[in-house]
Amino acid sequence: MISVQEALDLILAQSFPQENEEVDLLDAMGGVLAEPVKADRDAPPFHRVTMDGIAIHSNALKENSSFKIENIQSAGKAQQSLINSENCIEVMTGAVLPKNTDCVVPYEQITLADGVAFLDSNEHVPYQNVHLSGTDAKTGDTLLTKGQSITPAIIGTLASVGISRIRVHKLPKIAICSTGDELVDLDQEPEIHQIRKSNAYMLHAALLDFGIKPNVFHLRDDKEEMMDELATLVKDYQILLFSGAVSKGKYDYLPMVLQELGMNKIIHGVAQRPGKPFLFGVLPNSMIFGFPGNPASTFVCFHTYFKPWLRQYLGLPGRKYTAVLDQDISFKKPLTYHLLVTLSIKEGSILASPLKSSGSGDLVHLAHADAVISLPLEREMFHAGEIFPLNPLGKNLL
Amino acid sequence: MISVQEALDLILAQSFPQENEEVDLLDAMGGVLAEPVKADRDAPPFHRVTMDGIAIHSNALKENSSFKIENIQSAGKAQQSLINSENCIEVMTGAVLPKNTDCVVPYEQITLADGVAFLDSNEHVPYQNVHLSGTDAKTGDTLLTKGQSITPAIIGTLASVGISRIRVHKLPKIAICSTGDELVDLDQEPEIHQIRKSNAYMLHAALLDFGIKPNVFHLRDDKEEMMDELATLVKDYQILLFSGAVSKGKYDYLPMVLQELGMNKIIHGVAQRPGKPFLFGVLPNSMIFGFPGNPASTFVCFHTYFKPWLRQYLGLPGRKYTAVLDQDISFKKPLTYHLLVTLSIKEGSILASPLKSSGSGDLVHLAHADAVISLPLEREMFHAGEIFPLNPLGKNLL
Repeated sequence: MISVQEALDLILAQSFPQENEEVDLLDAMGGVLAEPVKADRDAPPFHRVTMDGIAIHSNALKENSSFKIENIQSAGKAQQSLINSENCIEVMTGAVLPKNTDCVVPYEQITLADGVAFLDSNEHVPYQNVHLSGTDAKTGDTLLTKGQSITPAIIGTLASVGISRIRVHKLPKIAICSTGDELVDLDQEPEIHQIRKSNAYMLHAALLDFGIKPNVFHLRDDKEEMMDELATLVKDYQILLFSGAVSKGKYDYLPMVLQELGMNKIIHGVAQRPGKPFLFGVLPNSMIFGFPGNPASTFVCFHTYFKPWLRQYLGLPGRKYTAVLDQDISFKKPLTYHLLVTLSIKEGSILASPLKSSGSGDLVHLAHADAVISLPLEREMFHAGEIFPLNPLGKNLL
Repeated sequence: MISVQEALDLILAQSFPQENEEVDLLDAMGGVLAEPVKADRDAPPFHRVTMDGIAIHSNALKENSSFKIENIQSAGKAQQSLINSENCIEVMTGAVLPKNTDCVVPYEQITLADGVAFLDSNEHVPYQNVHLSGTDAKTGDTLLTKGQSITPAIIGTLASVGISRIRVHKLPKIAICSTGDELVDLDQEPEIHQIRKSNAYMLHAALLDFGIKPNVFHLRDDKEEMMDELATLVKDYQILLFSGAVSKGKYDYLPMVLQELGMNKIIHGVAQRPGKPFLFGVLPNSMIFGFPGNPASTFVCFHTYFKPWLRQYLGLPGRKYTAVLDQDISFKKPLTYHLLVTLSIKEGSILASPLKSSGSGDLVHLAHADAVISLPLEREMFHAGEIFPLNPLGKNLL
């Protein structure tokens, strides 16, 4: 059996054609930039007043501590000129610094009386309270690069350069397929030997978190039926996420059927718990992630294998997070142990507290987990205070 | 001027009627549970087989190491019974453990020939590879509590108990109002003394991240017009977020107009940078968050004051994150300094690296910030390795 890292390397080595699409600015929120963005003007585009007060020429400070107000320069008005360098112009935050001035003294440091501003002190320097044109960027500078995750501040930056439509990496078209004759849907009352579908909903919600709207199917434990349905799905979808039917059971037809449909099986079995029977393969136009059907197995494999692949596909950088284990743990099998944990932050450190769980079929405790930490297969004892790789069970950490 | 903590305490002390609504299961993703959720059956509902293999009665192991296969118990089928306790039943993962059996031996540990299973060893114990009924929860147990943030695993849990509609805390109805005559919208080419609206887009995107779809307005620097428009908005919206017009400028009519409309001004000015002129007030049916108009001021105040209020309103727990400053910083004003940083995780610690920014008007650098760390006003020097409060500039951390 291969290791977790070997499995991940095999998955990330698969190339897959990436597409872009142009979307409205606000629809790009949470997406990934598919093109760099340049400044169309200097930022700021003019010498910009940053405090409400008066603008003077600093040369006048040598002999003068009171300034007659010539005019008002408000934000959004064309630049005015100071006519007499002994005078001043009242200025508002966001306004253009008036011509023939180079210094803004805020209202807090002056007294106004009869159209004259009296300075509390003459200790002012050129260009104080002025945000100089081009300080943050010059026209043509690259402000944002391809592959940046689009946050609210990036939406603001795009707006500031006048972009109302933007190219983003297109999200893949995904089918979720649950399997297993023991599953019933939410509108049915389960018999004693049946359980309700939960993995398909969990995966659906996890994809929504990434902005992906999947289609959801259910495959019965019937080889012919599975073959018919999958023959269409592998043509219609770029990614197929399966839950269940990948193990050694008599009715685990999935790997066989997919191979008959042309799948190149790249991974089947990883030295890990949960998720040992994980299946990964490629077809000419689609990729297969076959997650073992227990809830924790499905969800841990989704975050361990699918999420890094999706991030790479979208052009996002890889992530290497770590956390501090907060209690001793022993695990004696030669498997990487993906331990379910809750996270907290204490004194700048990320602490991982193991959840008491009954195993991979335990959805109840999975719902309380923030992340997994991956304990290496070479060891059996893991001590409080040691640092291990961390994978949040969400799009982001906490 | 009051401190950041005093301002936050004043805001969080404001009570505001909370509402619930019932939504479809998948629409609840990212929301907050408004009701506890109980188990409608034991979890698992039956003794559940966790490996593909054979089920035997462990008593037979004393004398027997080969077992004739009587039957197959597949997942989703009603429980079978082992007739002869010397025999076995083939069982599949997810199936009910057959009657008169108590032990599952996986295929990996047996050899099958002519309808008989030969055990590699007799070292098996009762209830191995069986997930016992009710281990994770008993019927009636509280699985999820009011106020939990709805994650994919919680969607899975809700599905598992048959919930297709769920009560969540209703998101508030929010208006974003940008102000300032220097601003033009994206479809206009700005004059040299004008800039494009960016804060309204940034706030809009930030609210979308919380699942809130705000309405956006622009108020001109005209007192009468502002009065007319706001008279309606304070009746129609629960929360009004303003960007700009809260400082000492001649045309910063906003605080005055809001007070004339009946606002109880609770905060105007906080000992912080950026965001010193921050305004907060309440009207009979609405709350006012007046963010100073520079991009960093607006966005830092949104995350410092509005986000904790929103989390409290939705019933989410307060958060106290911290990070390790990774270089020396000096800041000599008696103000809390909200320092823009990028974050990285090294050896389980969250490292905060200060961004070189030209100040609160600098949108270009704000777009690269992951978070702010808040440096206390009592001090002037802050050293690498020290730990300070951390506030991510997003819904989540990283």
